Amino acid sequence: MLKLDDLDRAIIKLLKSDARLTISEISSKLGKPESTIHFRIKKLQEKGIIEKYSIILGDEIKPKHTAFLVLRVEKPVIEDFLERYLEYITKTLSMLPNVLAVAKSKEDYIIALVGEETQEKLERFIEDNIKTIPTLKEVIVLPVREFKKGADLIGFLAEI
Amino acid sequence: MLKLDDLDRAIIKLLKSDARLTISEISSKLGKPESTIHFRIKKLQEKGIIEKYSIILGDEIKPKHTAFLVLRVEKPVIEDFLERYLEYITKTLSMLPNVLAVAKSKEDYIIALVGEETQEKLERFIEDNIKTIPTLKEVIVLPVREFKKGADLIGFLAEI
Repeated sequence: MLKLDDLDRAIIKLLKSDARLTISEISSKLGKPESTIHFRIKKLQEKGIIEKYSIILGDEIKPKHTAFLVLRVEKPVIEDFLERYLEYITKTLSMLPNVLAVAKSKEDYIIALVGEETQEKLERFIEDNIKTIPTLKEVIVLPVREFKKGADLIGFLAEI
Repeated sequence: MLKLDDLDRAIIKLLKSDARLTISEISSKLGKPESTIHFRIKKLQEKGIIEKYSIILGDEIKPKHTAFLVLRVEKPVIEDFLERYLEYITKTLSMLPNVLAVAKSKEDYIIALVGEETQEKLERFIEDNIKTIPTLKEVIVLPVREFKKGADLIGFLAEI
């Protein structure tokens, strides 16, 4: 882990909350010279600590109803095929625009985050596009009722 | 859902991949006048379609080992207390820097995304800080082996 000092952390916090802040605005917020802020941001980017700048989509456009899915894949007779099944399913899921994120987990588990405009559409999407995937043994649907932390991730992952 | 045309979508896609692109760069990438791009971005912001600009932290600093946790809360004798338990646990979790996201799900379920620098630290964090939370009945740990989609969400949610 790289060493970051308080100034680096303060700059990162500000940019996380608004990446459009100018050097001059950050400088006056933190009471440090613009040249220092400029140099620090340059360093943070060069070191790969700040990797990318992106946008978060708002309520007007992001899916209002989301759910985490825990998927279990059928264990194939030939054990080596499990990885192929996992690969096939995660690849299929990742191509669907309503699938915001998908990851392989331990053994026969897959996790996905899905979203839709309405509860009905979300349920239909899960019934029609997820539960119909071959080699899938079980689908546990965990609807998101309320984010306590990380709510922004939906607007971050949403596709248009 | 608001109507977006192809130009809006193209602008959003570009800004998602790099929110630092200037109006002039977007203009030349899309072959549209700068004034049009400027106007469209202004509109997208005003309508709340683009809500925020943020940064994504890189491999150097973001947690390398992550897991989704499915938590089940003890059902209290007095049923009305369940919501208090859920509120207490999600609030406690959201204050921990290793908890990247946490959400209340259906009934007695909570979902969390946690991360740490090493596998050992992640396991210890779950043992010491999650499994010890009172009123928690069950903790299912689903380690992330590989994101197929949405991998950026870790660098987006990571705290420093």
